[in-house]
Amino acid sequence: MTTGLSERFGLSYPIMLAPMGGVSGGALAAAVSNAGGLGMVGGGYGDLQWMKRELELAVAGTQRPWGVGLITWKATREAVDLALSYEPKAFFFSFGDVSPYVDAVKARGCALICQVQDLGGAREAKAIGADFIVAQGAEAGGHGAVRSTLPFVPAVVDAVDPVPVLAAGGVGDGRGLAAALALGACGAVIGTRYCATHEALMHPLAAQRLVEADGDHTQRTRVFDIARGYDWPPAYTGRALRNRFVERWHGREQALAADTAAFEQYRQAQQRADFEQALVWGGEVVDLITGIEPAAALTERIGRDAAERLRQLGAA
Amino acid sequence: MTTGLSERFGLSYPIMLAPMGGVSGGALAAAVSNAGGLGMVGGGYGDLQWMKRELELAVAGTQRPWGVGLITWKATREAVDLALSYEPKAFFFSFGDVSPYVDAVKARGCALICQVQDLGGAREAKAIGADFIVAQGAEAGGHGAVRSTLPFVPAVVDAVDPVPVLAAGGVGDGRGLAAALALGACGAVIGTRYCATHEALMHPLAAQRLVEADGDHTQRTRVFDIARGYDWPPAYTGRALRNRFVERWHGREQALAADTAAFEQYRQAQQRADFEQALVWGGEVVDLITGIEPAAALTERIGRDAAERLRQLGAA
Repeated sequence: MTTGLSERFGLSYPIMLAPMGGVSGGALAAAVSNAGGLGMVGGGYGDLQWMKRELELAVAGTQRPWGVGLITWKATREAVDLALSYEPKAFFFSFGDVSPYVDAVKARGCALICQVQDLGGAREAKAIGADFIVAQGAEAGGHGAVRSTLPFVPAVVDAVDPVPVLAAGGVGDGRGLAAALALGACGAVIGTRYCATHEALMHPLAAQRLVEADGDHTQRTRVFDIARGYDWPPAYTGRALRNRFVERWHGREQALAADTAAFEQYRQAQQRADFEQALVWGGEVVDLITGIEPAAALTERIGRDAAERLRQLGAA
Repeated sequence: MTTGLSERFGLSYPIMLAPMGGVSGGALAAAVSNAGGLGMVGGGYGDLQWMKRELELAVAGTQRPWGVGLITWKATREAVDLALSYEPKAFFFSFGDVSPYVDAVKARGCALICQVQDLGGAREAKAIGADFIVAQGAEAGGHGAVRSTLPFVPAVVDAVDPVPVLAAGGVGDGRGLAAALALGACGAVIGTRYCATHEALMHPLAAQRLVEADGDHTQRTRVFDIARGYDWPPAYTGRALRNRFVERWHGREQALAADTAAFEQYRQAQQRADFEQALVWGGEVVDLITGIEPAAALTERIGRDAAERLRQLGAA
């Protein structure tokens, strides 16, 4: 399965771990890289202490290429420079204006990866010199927007040619990876599925919810960002498992924003790992999660299943 | 490209024309069937006069298998029996309880095809004996719900095994068809892309809008159903091109429902083909529509491109 992605980073499988903030730590990133994918550390909102710890684990855990990601509108020069000091081979930005960081990333010989949610964003990413563009569909877990992966990926491929494109959102097994390649992507970014691995920094009760959930019961919502005090740009919502907190507040965002007691209750629910109230990000792909397993075994299975499926379809 | 769909109907390509109400007439259905796909007449809300005219055109236009579709919650026994009297080989139901029509369809040896929008619907369709289940994603044009095609199709495949599954929503070229097969579907249902064909019953100005539109500018909405007086079940919205009518009323549905003058203005806009006000259904796949062409050429190109793409990926 040789693609522009696998060639650039010497991968066995065209699989990129989504840099899920706080979940994709150094151990998970290293495990994915060691298995032949591209592991990514999820720097999220740019907590420097968390980043140092996890970036050190990535460096210690693998000799193979790995990368790092940040939420662009929350990124700082300090967080970007800290990440670059660990010599990642890929820097993944999503949700905001990447232009302040392009030169620093490129000066290190690090691949610039821009995740986009619409065609306008795709064209901007090409214009600033992205080495790879990730077309993210709304079925993805966590933050995202409104386009769907299947029609969005080929539209981005056509719009940014010849920049290589990855598919994100909805991919959780070999079928999804094979579909991403069929759409013209050079690989797939996989997030939610990796939450149910031994190495993911997930509370066990949250991971178990991902195993049990089905994709009919996820929801794009702002309620968790409001409760947690994150001022996300209005274009982005987050897909989470529907729980009592969502049932109570989704559609009543203004009331929630005015209810400071609810914020405190939310914080306490999070502390006691009460996931009927607290957030579990999850994409529609939760249907395909049947258990918690080592990230290496998962990576290899997805890669091999995709290759085998494409071999069979190509011979038919 | 031999699949369960192509074998059942003797197709050259595992492509089914979506039975788009009022758009997929007998000439379009016959053209798709003659080109090696499965043409479908879109009976829509069950207008008997329209159905008679278009079903006769289908019968006159092709010797190959073709089918018919109805909006289930609006279907009547009379419309179903009328359609069956023309001996379609496939009967496609979507949006509602199909059980009243199962026996009549099966008694004719006609394949029962149920389109579903969530896993619950998929399991119901299997239980009533659907011969094929169509997993429809929210990126589709026209009516639909909330799941996205890429993760939904493999989830339905797993949930209804061994019933064969088709993918609907987001497929408009060979890449999309190849992706559908990679996801485990036995074919793809293609709607919006066929609106931009010579045979589609579309106003030329509406078809031209589909050519010019991009997928960032479609919207799932109820405003056109409200303005046209269709009492759709709340689970379903329709994806349309965003125009001034959508900008004005989307999010203000209650005000629209109370504004009978707006209904009359809408009706007049429709009559004068003012598509800044009047409805043009369209899926996110509009990105991939670059011109209006004969349905046969489109069918053959999609089928051949998908086969070639899968051949290349399988050999890589």
